[in-house]
Amino acid sequence: MDQIAALHMLSYMTKPERVNIAITAGSSPKGMYETIIPQVRGKSYFSNVHYYNFDEIPYKKEDREGITIENLRKLYLTPAEIPAENIHILDQHNWEGYDKKLAADGGLDLVILGLGGDGHFCGNLPNSTKFGDLTTKVINNEYLQSRVELMFKGPNDAPNYYITMGPRTIMNIKNLMMIVSGKGKAEILKKVMEGPVDEAIPSSILKLHPSFTLILDADAASLLE
Amino acid sequence: MDQIAALHMLSYMTKPERVNIAITAGSSPKGMYETIIPQVRGKSYFSNVHYYNFDEIPYKKEDREGITIENLRKLYLTPAEIPAENIHILDQHNWEGYDKKLAADGGLDLVILGLGGDGHFCGNLPNSTKFGDLTTKVINNEYLQSRVELMFKGPNDAPNYYITMGPRTIMNIKNLMMIVSGKGKAEILKKVMEGPVDEAIPSSILKLHPSFTLILDADAASLLE
Amino acid sequence: MDQIAALHMLSYMTKPERVNIAITAGSSPKGMYETIIPQVRGKSYFSNVHYYNFDEIPYKKEDREGITIENLRKLYLTPAEIPAENIHILDQHNWEGYDKKLAADGGLDLVILGLGGDGHFCGNLPNSTKFGDLTTKVINNEYLQSRVELMFKGPNDAPNYYITMGPRTIMNIKNLMMIVSGKGKAEILKKVMEGPVDEAIPSSILKLHPSFTLILDADAASLLE
Amino acid sequence: MDQIAALHMLSYMTKPERVNIAITAGSSPKGMYETIIPQVRGKSYFSNVHYYNFDEIPYKKEDREGITIENLRKLYLTPAEIPAENIHILDQHNWEGYDKKLAADGGLDLVILGLGGDGHFCGNLPNSTKFGDLTTKVINNEYLQSRVELMFKGPNDAPNYYITMGPRTIMNIKNLMMIVSGKGKAEILKKVMEGPVDEAIPSSILKLHPSFTLILDADAASLLE
Repeated sequence: MDQIAALHMLSYMTKPERVNIAITAGSSPKGMYETIIPQVRGKSYFSNVHYYNFDEIPYKKEDREGITIENLRKLYLTPAEIPAENIHILDQHNWEGYDKKLAADGGLDLVILGLGGDGHFCGNLPNSTKFGDLTTKVINNEYLQSRVELMFKGPNDAPNYYITMGPRTIMNIKNLMMIVSGKGKAEILKKVMEGPVDEAIPSSILKLHPSFTLILDADAASLLE
Repeated sequence: MDQIAALHMLSYMTKPERVNIAITAGSSPKGMYETIIPQVRGKSYFSNVHYYNFDEIPYKKEDREGITIENLRKLYLTPAEIPAENIHILDQHNWEGYDKKLAADGGLDLVILGLGGDGHFCGNLPNSTKFGDLTTKVINNEYLQSRVELMFKGPNDAPNYYITMGPRTIMNIKNLMMIVSGKGKAEILKKVMEGPVDEAIPSSILKLHPSFTLILDADAASLLE
Repeated sequence: MDQIAALHMLSYMTKPERVNIAITAGSSPKGMYETIIPQVRGKSYFSNVHYYNFDEIPYKKEDREGITIENLRKLYLTPAEIPAENIHILDQHNWEGYDKKLAADGGLDLVILGLGGDGHFCGNLPNSTKFGDLTTKVINNEYLQSRVELMFKGPNDAPNYYITMGPRTIMNIKNLMMIVSGKGKAEILKKVMEGPVDEAIPSSILKLHPSFTLILDADAASLLE
Repeated sequence: MDQIAALHMLSYMTKPERVNIAITAGSSPKGMYETIIPQVRGKSYFSNVHYYNFDEIPYKKEDREGITIENLRKLYLTPAEIPAENIHILDQHNWEGYDKKLAADGGLDLVILGLGGDGHFCGNLPNSTKFGDLTTKVINNEYLQSRVELMFKGPNDAPNYYITMGPRTIMNIKNLMMIVSGKGKAEILKKVMEGPVDEAIPSSILKLHPSFTLILDADAASLLE
């Protein structure tokens, strides 16, 4: 699966002209990044590939970069030696009007998404954001606070808001690719693909996109018809 | 507006290769068809353009073609002298598996839609079909029955079901184009474009499509921000 | 014809994301620009459209801009009030590596070309540049010198070189559009479209492009089969 | 290389809608076919992929299929169990007007090409066909006769003509992919990619295509700058 995901991502990266890709920091694409890194590092050939993060959770003390870009750097950007000018950071300082910045950059060509156990994608949590939302700041609510605390291993460091590209921003991207692996995701994937389009399962909207590619392992796919 | 709509439609039709277009029988595109007909009639140049209807209301006595294709013939197909082999009729006999037929034909390149006064598109009425629906048969319910009776000017002729491409089928089309005209549509258009994505206003889903073109007159656009 | 050309050009400009268009300063597109200018002037809606010139003839005294950009400003850029940051000037100072700049900008989406009476396009003159050329500087030769002198109405002001996107750069653009009008172009157009692909008639290469649109008036088209 | 070529080809095949691919019978893609066959055989998922041959050498006694389709069946179509209705055979009986058939089918989305040791692609031999040619029948000349005899191991069986998609037909395909392997191809590949566009080296035209992908092994690439 890593191999297939890597080649799918590379098939966009090898275009000779500027390509804009939003990448995910979840665990599913880890193998994909490991496959790609040695092929990309130090190759001027890929100098027209630009990278974007699609959400950000800032630390409460804003004395360093947020948790998403921190993870993206660790997983891919730093080992692949991507130059600073090819990295476009979405955060709490620039989210307003970010959809205009994306349009001015030529739009995103590809987004690589993971699937949350509860059906979320990016920072679009069940019953939290709306399908019509563009890039947005999501203010504290009980549900997301519990999740953020989990991530931060304690409430001291946890912020009471985060930033995410909304469903409308994501649906306006030219090509969507979602990587899902493991038995643990089989049930939610079935709901996403075969159930109703419903804000209680945010990823259920993605199947309406005219260029949506799912990359699955056998476990994740085991319950699909 | 007719001129702009006509040239937008023609810009797809002039591709040298097979092009599949689903067209609408509403009143808004009438002027557009009148503009196109003299340019298309008898031109072998357009022999690779194929036409599809996206919904159908059969007559209760099924002794003739349904109301949609009847209207499409009157408005465009007959005066434009489109050959029978370029007309692909969706009806009560072939709707099952129709999405497979569309895929085998190369997919639809363009759909031209009108906007219903209640926010419907194709036969997707408020609170009736679901955003996840493919091409489907919609069975009688109170709401749609009242509408169908209106159309048929009396219940004797009215069917208790109709066929429509669902929201998912429409969203999977490569390019969407919606024509809206008149003061009477200004308010619903504002809800569609600026309100939430909601099955109570089916057309609200369309703004999530990555290639959605709206063609408006000044009256219809008068309330938009 | 101006109307059709204008709507074809506008159909690219109305995309919500950055669009890069190389435009021509010849006489054929004059009516097209006049049609477009009132629709574009002062509209923030078009702020993602970027303009490029595809050739440049510098004045011998390099104390002002070259003849192409001067004409493009007069014909379109100034009356349409295009902001400076949306104008990308190719000239004698930056032509080296210009194809890399184009790729970094996302590539050109559309080029609008005229057809020279001798079959040239851009600055690609018969038997002068080669089909494999990228953006290049063309040094003086007898043939082109005679043409340049004509343009400059006297040799004093005329340079002994000019800059042009080569056939390979042009063929790598996603969509080509050529506007040809008048009886005087009918014969050369016939050679271009129906004759051999030959460096003696540079435009003969364009018919090999997978997305090449010709916009003709009846006079120009009168000899085509 | 086989892996990369296979995934590139598969990236077209996984589109949900009809996809038309012209494939090559040379030796370079053998490994690619072997990689793809087990993934394609018996999968209804690929039922919208249609296959075309781009040239054909009929046997002199026309009592069986030609040499190209015979090889394509052996290499790929038969072991992959491609159904007859997805195989579109170009031969001596239908080559006239074949470009119209291609357009009516929706056009070719991809062609997979090999590179001849003399720079030919498909049946477009040096100094034989012209860059402006569409699908055509090539009548005997000294050069090609020598090659055909080689292929047929003796003149008795060899025809005095063959059929090929011409350079113009190939250049009009949406995406080109060429597979080249081995030290023996390094020199001609260098000429193709870095030398002039010249009918003496037919493949030199391909670098003008806006979507041309080269898949090379290190040996073939060894002389490129």
